[in-house]
Amino acid sequence: MRIEAIDLFYVALPEVTDAADGTQDSFLVRVRTDDGLEGWGESDASPLVSLAAYVCPMSHGNIINLSDSLLGEKVETPEDIRRLHFKAHRRAMDIEQVDHAQSAVDIALWDLVGRRLGKPVYALLGYERTYPKLPYCSVLFGDDPQSTRRIAEAIRNKGYRAAKFGWGPMGQDEETDIALVRAAREGLGPGSRLMVDAGVAWHLDAETAYKRACQFAPFEVTWLEEPLFAGAVEQYARLKELGSPVAIAGGEGCNTYRAAEDFIRHGRPDFVQIDVGRIGGITTTDEVCRLARREGVIFVNHTFKSHLQLAASLHVLGGVEEFQFLEYPDTPSPLARDLTTRRILRDEDGLVRAPEGPGLGIEVNMDTVRTYLRPVRIEIDGRTVFASKPL
Amino acid sequence: MRIEAIDLFYVALPEVTDAADGTQDSFLVRVRTDDGLEGWGESDASPLVSLAAYVCPMSHGNIINLSDSLLGEKVETPEDIRRLHFKAHRRAMDIEQVDHAQSAVDIALWDLVGRRLGKPVYALLGYERTYPKLPYCSVLFGDDPQSTRRIAEAIRNKGYRAAKFGWGPMGQDEETDIALVRAAREGLGPGSRLMVDAGVAWHLDAETAYKRACQFAPFEVTWLEEPLFAGAVEQYARLKELGSPVAIAGGEGCNTYRAAEDFIRHGRPDFVQIDVGRIGGITTTDEVCRLARREGVIFVNHTFKSHLQLAASLHVLGGVEEFQFLEYPDTPSPLARDLTTRRILRDEDGLVRAPEGPGLGIEVNMDTVRTYLRPVRIEIDGRTVFASKPL
Repeated sequence: MRIEAIDLFYVALPEVTDAADGTQDSFLVRVRTDDGLEGWGESDASPLVSLAAYVCPMSHGNIINLSDSLLGEKVETPEDIRRLHFKAHRRAMDIEQVDHAQSAVDIALWDLVGRRLGKPVYALLGYERTYPKLPYCSVLFGDDPQSTRRIAEAIRNKGYRAAKFGWGPMGQDEETDIALVRAAREGLGPGSRLMVDAGVAWHLDAETAYKRACQFAPFEVTWLEEPLFAGAVEQYARLKELGSPVAIAGGEGCNTYRAAEDFIRHGRPDFVQIDVGRIGGITTTDEVCRLARREGVIFVNHTFKSHLQLAASLHVLGGVEEFQFLEYPDTPSPLARDLTTRRILRDEDGLVRAPEGPGLGIEVNMDTVRTYLRPVRIEIDGRTVFASKPL
Repeated sequence: MRIEAIDLFYVALPEVTDAADGTQDSFLVRVRTDDGLEGWGESDASPLVSLAAYVCPMSHGNIINLSDSLLGEKVETPEDIRRLHFKAHRRAMDIEQVDHAQSAVDIALWDLVGRRLGKPVYALLGYERTYPKLPYCSVLFGDDPQSTRRIAEAIRNKGYRAAKFGWGPMGQDEETDIALVRAAREGLGPGSRLMVDAGVAWHLDAETAYKRACQFAPFEVTWLEEPLFAGAVEQYARLKELGSPVAIAGGEGCNTYRAAEDFIRHGRPDFVQIDVGRIGGITTTDEVCRLARREGVIFVNHTFKSHLQLAASLHVLGGVEEFQFLEYPDTPSPLARDLTTRRILRDEDGLVRAPEGPGLGIEVNMDTVRTYLRPVRIEIDGRTVFASKPL
């Protein structure tokens, strides 16, 4: 079977704010083959910039758009997906956006090949079974300690055993930072896990990050996430050297396999958090997951999109028993919540498993795509290089 | 003075081929301030994808387009440029394309502030003077050894004392690879420097790269460039470990400061080649140049665009006496050749100097922009988010 169509969808809420909420829009790709099958994928990236990487005119042999490299190609097996991943990436190697953009089509191809072979994606990746994961309810800090405490109480009432608070006012000042973490812990109660996501608050400043780690430690924090910029690998190493009393997590800013390898080897985090919608899809995420295992670093998904993307992450890390944690966004926008016809829910033990396929094992709700679609038209020299088709 | 307009230009030849010739199109940015000044910059990147990073709708607080972050801002001093570089980059940190895209506006801002202060950019970077550089005539290999020899002879006849041959058939097979380098050396004659650019021919294969380095060594090759992928940092280290008899160069694929730092520290090249039009402009290139100096690695520009970009590179490395080499594209397209009203030429000693300003010290030829302009229109939800203005 050959790739017959690569359909691109920009979806967004009517109003988008500057909150650190990644569920306000999305970039979706549907791949269709000539035997009537289809697969879906989602990037965690700017929809317009990613879309441009599928339709931009050629600049030379290293800037060839993703659609041109993939249309008409045979795709029947996991080896085909890996071959096409390499081909499309190589021919677009001077498009910086390529990894963010390619993530969606790569996920879609795994979904599609899984459907063709009647197998879940984790099986295509070589795993015989999956293991249940502990979901941590991933939310933003409230605007102040009081509202953060209320959010934490609500999470406890929903029965979560772990929660991550991030961004919001974190990084404003020492007193507020500590009050926010204290409030989160008080709201959750003593039994459950608390993760803190600092949202790159201290930029390149390992010393302040270390100080906060010491100040947060009494609240039994499982990890301190992204205290520093993604590129601050030397500073992450410095934080490790200082002997942070709290485990350090990061990695969502790794846009390439090498960035993840560099961060793991030289930044020396305890947890590496990879976004399947940024680093190039399931193909690359699977490689980083295996690297993390070899290097003794705990792999965690970064997910702040729909359950289409949560499923993609689950298929990658589901088969590895020792990787126990799962980022699980709890307060998605209606767009992200309704993008799939069903959601991946906790079982009676409060754990989450990869869907059993075929493919990703989850279906896109076309009504939702239709509701939130933002039609795009791009013309160059008066010629239309892309126009959203009516649904 | 405040930024009043950021004008975006996609220019291209009527016909673009898949040859590794980066002068077939370009992305230009003109910045205008409310006191009537302007500055120009150029990215070495996909024009459409880069343009999208200036006009894409906000996705959240980490995906805000470059124009929104810069318009209306005060820009009077180098400190303003650095502050704005940080601000725009921070607010676009989840747009992977940001570095490629931002390069053009960053270069334009240095040009503009130099014009305002009546100083060349190198002076704004803290250098009192510049030193002449040895330009290596940068061309593609011919389609076979015979044509490569003729190209080399022509370069010798033009009086160049150094030349770099790259891409083309390199990497096809052992015999051809060696024949190409032999032909280049024979054509140049014994006296002058020869650099070989393998165009990532051996991907991740350090052993083959080592073997070729040994085979090329008898032809007195100054460096072997990009034998491996940009992300193959571990493999570059392996090549070093194997003891390549030829110096190793690379770095044009470094899209971020960290990628360059990682490559310098862990890939251990002898020469690091940074493209001011990819890594974020003069601000970031200057930082890498200083890092290379501290780390004892020789900094070289990567330039395969117009002399606007050559000027930007020259202002960065011009002030450092020990960095002697300058990539100097010799066979640009008419677009790249005529993009500036004058070209930066070799002096009677065959050397090249940074223009003496103010700003970049070079003027854009608006007739050329007009001739090659590809008007772009982008509509979302029926609303125009970008439309090229008539010139």
